Amino acid sequence: MVSERPLRLAITATGLDKGALDAEQFLEIDEEARVVRGKGLPSAETGLHLAIVGARGAGAVLHTHSMWSTLLSESFAANGAVPLEGFEMLKGLTGVRTHEHKEILPIFENSQDIDQLAEHVEVLLKRDPALHGFLIRRHGLYTWGRDLAEAKRHVEVLEFLLQLLGRSKSGV
Amino acid sequence: MVSERPLRLAITATGLDKGALDAEQFLEIDEEARVVRGKGLPSAETGLHLAIVGARGAGAVLHTHSMWSTLLSESFAANGAVPLEGFEMLKGLTGVRTHEHKEILPIFENSQDIDQLAEHVEVLLKRDPALHGFLIRRHGLYTWGRDLAEAKRHVEVLEFLLQLLGRSKSGV
Amino acid sequence: MVSERPLRLAITATGLDKGALDAEQFLEIDEEARVVRGKGLPSAETGLHLAIVGARGAGAVLHTHSMWSTLLSESFAANGAVPLEGFEMLKGLTGVRTHEHKEILPIFENSQDIDQLAEHVEVLLKRDPALHGFLIRRHGLYTWGRDLAEAKRHVEVLEFLLQLLGRSKSGV
Amino acid sequence: MVSERPLRLAITATGLDKGALDAEQFLEIDEEARVVRGKGLPSAETGLHLAIVGARGAGAVLHTHSMWSTLLSESFAANGAVPLEGFEMLKGLTGVRTHEHKEILPIFENSQDIDQLAEHVEVLLKRDPALHGFLIRRHGLYTWGRDLAEAKRHVEVLEFLLQLLGRSKSGV
Repeated sequence: MVSERPLRLAITATGLDKGALDAEQFLEIDEEARVVRGKGLPSAETGLHLAIVGARGAGAVLHTHSMWSTLLSESFAANGAVPLEGFEMLKGLTGVRTHEHKEILPIFENSQDIDQLAEHVEVLLKRDPALHGFLIRRHGLYTWGRDLAEAKRHVEVLEFLLQLLGRSKSGV
Repeated sequence: MVSERPLRLAITATGLDKGALDAEQFLEIDEEARVVRGKGLPSAETGLHLAIVGARGAGAVLHTHSMWSTLLSESFAANGAVPLEGFEMLKGLTGVRTHEHKEILPIFENSQDIDQLAEHVEVLLKRDPALHGFLIRRHGLYTWGRDLAEAKRHVEVLEFLLQLLGRSKSGV
Repeated sequence: MVSERPLRLAITATGLDKGALDAEQFLEIDEEARVVRGKGLPSAETGLHLAIVGARGAGAVLHTHSMWSTLLSESFAANGAVPLEGFEMLKGLTGVRTHEHKEILPIFENSQDIDQLAEHVEVLLKRDPALHGFLIRRHGLYTWGRDLAEAKRHVEVLEFLLQLLGRSKSGV
Repeated sequence: MVSERPLRLAITATGLDKGALDAEQFLEIDEEARVVRGKGLPSAETGLHLAIVGARGAGAVLHTHSMWSTLLSESFAANGAVPLEGFEMLKGLTGVRTHEHKEILPIFENSQDIDQLAEHVEVLLKRDPALHGFLIRRHGLYTWGRDLAEAKRHVEVLEFLLQLLGRSKSGV
């Protein structure tokens, strides 16, 4: 988030190789996803980022297309969510003070209709303020934080726990 | 591809450690695999590269001997192809606009007769213009692009999806 | 260990990103966990470090939250310990001279009551002087050495053996 | 190998951290494992290195304690060998010209009596000149080459194939 009032977000332009970004490829947008600085179209999933910022006041939103988030979004799809419970590592999520915590990662069906997906996400995030992230089926993980450092820590914690759960399901 | 007309390809000389290449070890060849610049014999699989360039007008062809392409080329051999379907990551393949896409990676039997293998590949690529790559059984993956950046993106996408499928088969 | 008499330990302050530490974020504490140099609260698990130093005279204590230590601390929880036996790599543990050695990693239930956990650990370490480490369930590994180099070697050896055991359980 | 006649080998001194070696920690030994240059005792497994050099005239011998060589040395122990057959990657072994090759990695029982182990290895290597390496059970891989580059290539090829076989056994 570049500023809160008026809302200004930095976001990558669509269709770029994320390993070769430079500062000019970050656009600044307002709360309606209009580009107010920079050139290009904002990322196709901009609406989802805005929904999370709107529902949570998050200062940073991160999204991964990782192996384990994709795998578990599919293997738990029938349950509608991945439960993460009883691990010390959960204490890396802001506000969690004991391993006896039960974290829920809801799973949304994937869709190319981002506006509709964003609406569903916004409803759920407002209804359940305890959530730290969610999965999109066969797609990946979204998490956030009050700043980039917190959002990065949430990625690390959730990706670790998803890998743990995935490996334990294959028989360890 | 160094030039299209006349066709000129850069390719590594055979029998070299790919981790220790320098510019002099890339040969320039014509459409008959004759060396027109540089010293040494072109890679044993030159015929396959030429077949792909001929059938597709590809500007770059990449070939990997990876863990997951080798594993899946074997476990799906009886089906003749690996199906990759329903993943957001498929949108990293040029021309694919939705996760509802079904990508097919045909599997060819491995052979030391590269000319014959190249003929089979050329026939299939001309018949099915939607393909982005293929596997050679117990050997590896071939993919391509209009330039090196696109071919690299196709390697990343296909290797990721092969690993996903492989891990999901072992019980996650 | 900074000095033995009086006992002085270096330990990280609580709540820090371990990937971004600098020298000022290490505190010096005494045998009662009182800070004698530096600013901040010592790590929440300081009591465990002191228990190990007290029971073993260890010069360095290391603690990991790794994938395989977490996984095996759970899958062997009903047995109360992970047995590691018959591997050449065991010879990397100080005092072990043959692969025919049987190493035991006891598993403690996780708890946010560190004082109580530390008491249990201290009792066990004094009773069984052959131990080189232990697990906390769904949490991670503790090991130690007379200096940092020995403690690091013990981490490498134990993590390798835990991964071996974990992979062998999933069917290799 | 430093020289062939008289035989002079470079080998690491025993008990060192292999990640922190410098040139002074390599000893030069003769065909009876006597140190002719440098200080310290040669590695405990020197006899095995000498046996391989004696039986094969190898210029370089490499030994790994890897995950997959250890795992497969155990899961194939009852068969006495790991068979590696039908993979393109086999062509990375010197003298192999087709994927239709069948490579055998014999498995020796681990022992702290290196002299006896070395005798068994020497007998087998002389009897079967087609071998490129062998495993010691629950211990690791030995391979060699006419020079260090060839020995390294053999490590890469054999470790890749062992991992392939290991992963395919767990259900891919």
